[in-house]
Amino acid sequence: MGALHEGHLSLVRQAAAENDKVFVSIYVNPTQFGVKEDLDSYPKTWDKDIEVLQQLNSDLKETPADEEGAIDTIFAPTTKTMYPTLPPDSSLPGTCSFVNITPLANLLEGKSRPVFFRGVATVCMKLFNLVQPTRVYFGQKDVQQTVIIKRMVRDFHLDTQVRIVPTEREKDDGLAMSSRNVYLGERRRKVGIVLYQALRAAEAAYRMGMRRREEVLVFAWEVANRMSMEQDELGEEQRARFEVDYISLADPETLEEVESVDEARGAVLSGAIKMLPLESVRQGERLGMGGDQVAVRLIDNIVLEPRHT
Amino acid sequence: MGALHEGHLSLVRQAAAENDKVFVSIYVNPTQFGVKEDLDSYPKTWDKDIEVLQQLNSDLKETPADEEGAIDTIFAPTTKTMYPTLPPDSSLPGTCSFVNITPLANLLEGKSRPVFFRGVATVCMKLFNLVQPTRVYFGQKDVQQTVIIKRMVRDFHLDTQVRIVPTEREKDDGLAMSSRNVYLGERRRKVGIVLYQALRAAEAAYRMGMRRREEVLVFAWEVANRMSMEQDELGEEQRARFEVDYISLADPETLEEVESVDEARGAVLSGAIKMLPLESVRQGERLGMGGDQVAVRLIDNIVLEPRHT
Repeated sequence: MGALHEGHLSLVRQAAAENDKVFVSIYVNPTQFGVKEDLDSYPKTWDKDIEVLQQLNSDLKETPADEEGAIDTIFAPTTKTMYPTLPPDSSLPGTCSFVNITPLANLLEGKSRPVFFRGVATVCMKLFNLVQPTRVYFGQKDVQQTVIIKRMVRDFHLDTQVRIVPTEREKDDGLAMSSRNVYLGERRRKVGIVLYQALRAAEAAYRMGMRRREEVLVFAWEVANRMSMEQDELGEEQRARFEVDYISLADPETLEEVESVDEARGAVLSGAIKMLPLESVRQGERLGMGGDQVAVRLIDNIVLEPRHT
Repeated sequence: MGALHEGHLSLVRQAAAENDKVFVSIYVNPTQFGVKEDLDSYPKTWDKDIEVLQQLNSDLKETPADEEGAIDTIFAPTTKTMYPTLPPDSSLPGTCSFVNITPLANLLEGKSRPVFFRGVATVCMKLFNLVQPTRVYFGQKDVQQTVIIKRMVRDFHLDTQVRIVPTEREKDDGLAMSSRNVYLGERRRKVGIVLYQALRAAEAAYRMGMRRREEVLVFAWEVANRMSMEQDELGEEQRARFEVDYISLADPETLEEVESVDEARGAVLSGAIKMLPLESVRQGERLGMGGDQVAVRLIDNIVLEPRHT
């Protein structure tokens, strides 16, 4: 969807390492935004995206001892190409040609964004058919998307291999890269790391041998609740409030919540928080796009790998 | 779906005339039957189907001056192959991986069979991906299916060409061939032709220059109503009652009802009737499968071709 950051570039690098020709699709797909969601305000940075991809491509081509491929095509279709008959419909009944992968599409992120994964699956089916790629690359950051795409490929017998690339994170604190991070000024940016910290705490519990849902997730909730209370105690000019949408411990294929982690299957720890608009802005404060007046939803996840005994 | 008749064989012949290798799929797809519909009672005639296809293939191979292809493969997958993750769900909410082509899937046949075209589109997407055919062949008899498959191919950019083969009809009176015709004994068989007669009457009106919906369709309704009254007047041992589900005059691409036929686009005349179970059976009467005690839905259509001026 454009607004490229290091996470996207790592997908391209991984694809170039494993294939001769890389297709990069840039398309802000309207059907994955709800009627009231942020389609219009989604960051569009076409010129910068092209520049970044050209730079990356030069790097790829100049690499010595090169077995790598390079970007062959940037595919940036019009909506008339992607939705050639009826205009794309973002409403829930949805009058259009759609792929729907349920119940996966209705869980986790799908609960608050009921049309999102229908839009994702639909546009990916179209892209896969147009490009007929040997392999497709998705980022681990959107874990539910990776599970849904794998399910779609399997259920519809698509002739492609789904490759998942690890989440790129900010160097300093590990915040997952996201096109939406540009909306976070300094203050919200610092508090936004709470989600990853919470998931890391739960992961540590798992590594220490905890398996039951409560004993793993209590560590995540402790981190989130402590940060929330800390913010509440600060004044409006200091604090950045947030709401936890969910913290999930789910099966890696069905995404159903698990009561305890089956070591043979592992699990996905994931969560979503909403960074609320700043209540009061200080003079000279470093603000994000939109002056930190837009609520920003952040998601992240950690895979608890299965243990092979 | 097996239960092969001349209509299916004409698809194979057409495919063999235009391609080297023909794949025949035989699969009774559960997701296109509603929860209360006739999946279990749908005629399954596997041994006879194979025999008929082998005979046809011998004919194709023996044809002199042969540029024709032949059947390469009969593909008869298990449901576990076609629905590899979740069991197929025929309920309306539908927990499964589905393709849905709306509003087309909700019109005409879709009104009384709300899951039907979702099942058809889904299984065809799977089959197309598995086989990756240069061309796919569908019968004109299921006109709504042909329109939906064409729309699916276009909207999802599937790399295949949709070929439509004319409806095969019984020699004596033109009844459209259908796997469900085996349920019609002599008496219901004779009355069942009323649908085609009604559509023919409306077609004649169009050919004579009528364009407005009412002035075209009144001819169809006249035929249907007359036959209905005739049956009503007969005794229970003589008559075969039926109900008209719909008679439609619709746009050939959107399938929306038209108020008058646009000569540049043409139209589709179509209809569905339900042959009711016989009320009383005579001794020695030639009955269909199930003793004519099963209601049988018959559909048919005539394309009013556009006129190029």
